[in-house]
Amino acid sequence: MSAWEKNIRKVIPYVPGEQPKDKNIIKLNTNENPYDPSPRVMAKQLELEALRKYPDPAVSDLVNALADYHGVSNSQVFVGVGSDDVIAMSFMTFFHGDKPILFPDITYSFYDVWAELFGISYNQVAVDDNFELKLEDYYQPNGGIIFPNPNAPTSIAKPISFIEDVVKHNTDVVVIVDEAYVDFGCESALSLVDKYDNVLVVRTYSKSRSMAGLRIGYAIGNEKLIRYLNDVKYSFNSYTMNYPSIVLGVESLADEDYFRETIAKVMETRDWFTEEIRKIGFRCPDSSTNFVFVTHEKLQAKDIYEQAKANKIIVRYFAKPRIDNYLRITIGTREEMETFLTFLKKLVSNA
Amino acid sequence: MSAWEKNIRKVIPYVPGEQPKDKNIIKLNTNENPYDPSPRVMAKQLELEALRKYPDPAVSDLVNALADYHGVSNSQVFVGVGSDDVIAMSFMTFFHGDKPILFPDITYSFYDVWAELFGISYNQVAVDDNFELKLEDYYQPNGGIIFPNPNAPTSIAKPISFIEDVVKHNTDVVVIVDEAYVDFGCESALSLVDKYDNVLVVRTYSKSRSMAGLRIGYAIGNEKLIRYLNDVKYSFNSYTMNYPSIVLGVESLADEDYFRETIAKVMETRDWFTEEIRKIGFRCPDSSTNFVFVTHEKLQAKDIYEQAKANKIIVRYFAKPRIDNYLRITIGTREEMETFLTFLKKLVSNA
Repeated sequence: MSAWEKNIRKVIPYVPGEQPKDKNIIKLNTNENPYDPSPRVMAKQLELEALRKYPDPAVSDLVNALADYHGVSNSQVFVGVGSDDVIAMSFMTFFHGDKPILFPDITYSFYDVWAELFGISYNQVAVDDNFELKLEDYYQPNGGIIFPNPNAPTSIAKPISFIEDVVKHNTDVVVIVDEAYVDFGCESALSLVDKYDNVLVVRTYSKSRSMAGLRIGYAIGNEKLIRYLNDVKYSFNSYTMNYPSIVLGVESLADEDYFRETIAKVMETRDWFTEEIRKIGFRCPDSSTNFVFVTHEKLQAKDIYEQAKANKIIVRYFAKPRIDNYLRITIGTREEMETFLTFLKKLVSNA
Repeated sequence: MSAWEKNIRKVIPYVPGEQPKDKNIIKLNTNENPYDPSPRVMAKQLELEALRKYPDPAVSDLVNALADYHGVSNSQVFVGVGSDDVIAMSFMTFFHGDKPILFPDITYSFYDVWAELFGISYNQVAVDDNFELKLEDYYQPNGGIIFPNPNAPTSIAKPISFIEDVVKHNTDVVVIVDEAYVDFGCESALSLVDKYDNVLVVRTYSKSRSMAGLRIGYAIGNEKLIRYLNDVKYSFNSYTMNYPSIVLGVESLADEDYFRETIAKVMETRDWFTEEIRKIGFRCPDSSTNFVFVTHEKLQAKDIYEQAKANKIIVRYFAKPRIDNYLRITIGTREEMETFLTFLKKLVSNA
């Protein structure tokens, strides 16, 4: 060990899903959208001479477009390099108290990584046997709360009444609702941001907007929350959003029809796929997301994962307590899901 | 004050230079390159269908291209969203000890902001009356060292022997050399990274590569340093570099002739401009950067700044101790600098 290593922050990083370069793989492991971004995005000419200048540090064009789109004020919108950047900044900004923050034990596996990175104490609250969040768990003293709605990787949505109850019982801390998957059939908490000053709603372009490759996330909340968040962001990196993100991010918002159409297609495929796999012995919660969370009555999840991979189909397997016999399967195109279903049927009949 | 505000991290953020939208302004305030990126970058067709997928979290294409370009191994390169992101991650990773870190009192004004943000104690070591770093100051016990070479906003470069001496005297900590401006006539510390495992060299695409709008920075060092840095990066945000950054970042490296040509033009304009302003009563160190750091024998820097701004020319003024009678002037095109010089001559003759 070198002498300088004693001063190093040592962490166990988040492990993202595989991003294979082989284009023949059916990729159902990272909840990307199987459809291209809006034709408006695809047709946009970038003015690359803009690249020589720093982008607008306030990202006004994108902030204003998002404010218009959601019917909130410009001062209520924060943008970042994917919702991961937005949430990392939020952890740093809002979870700076002494009490442990709360989040579910089965949830986005980045939350505990951020808490560890920033030295925030945390309490992973157990979901029930059906993977449902329990309201009373969020009545205990805490330094802040975060959960996705719908939750991941469980795909289960909670009604707005649940969210409002949590927010109302925790006005002394910030409650972050991570709505990465909200567009696939879940009620948003956006209606609460003008009623409560302690709720922050986080969104992403990576799922419903088909733009994971551009890295855009945003948060909407009371303008005081957004101001604190911007102070930390400006203390970290003045210019996080690059020119292509800003321009193409605005363009995406201008094509609501295409957006609704692709979401409807994903939801239709999801509902059909859910019905089909239940016929062959799989169990899964009703999904409000672009993935399903499944377990089989006889087959082991890990075996299915490995055999699918050998057949060039990648899904997500988490070797974690409580969910190590489950798979998270992203909803691809109807064709991709038919191929996968055929594979699964063969696997089940050979079992 | 709301109840939740007691848990908030409160910081005083870095204030970036103005980014006016008026295209008629001569913008000499943020050290951008006056020339467009390489024609190869401008001609590159982006495949926007790639946007629906997450980018490669390891950013292999860009990392490999940078490794080839600099003749180091892939495992010695780290990339981030501008050098600000790279340095922020480096502060978080490497400056995690108990002793104060060291950096000059006159330097990039983000260093103390990062130290405050991450709760790192620091000691701002005074440069001498000629704004020169003093070697013996870096012999005191410390938790890490960072300085730009050439330094900003002073524009002064230190020889490689100085850097090596600092690195050799501080093998128990990480020494970061911020080489944002190195391409404009300063010797790089890259030759030290295979000799010492405690030196990290940070670079950016924002100045010499004319790509501030894309947000690309990188670091080169011993592979152990890079691994620690990546662990923290993966604990913060798995996918920081978006698809356009990766593709266009690679493209820029393939056009060495254009790169050298634009740098030579900037340096030629700088040397001519330096000579001309010295004739009219300005003093400034010999610059090894794409800016000059000037003071006038009679005129007040703040007045010059304000009057230039009224004439649609923006330079950078820092209302800070020791440098509040100085201006940092970015080198623009020859034509822009001629316009500015004419303005300055008029100002001086009217004084």
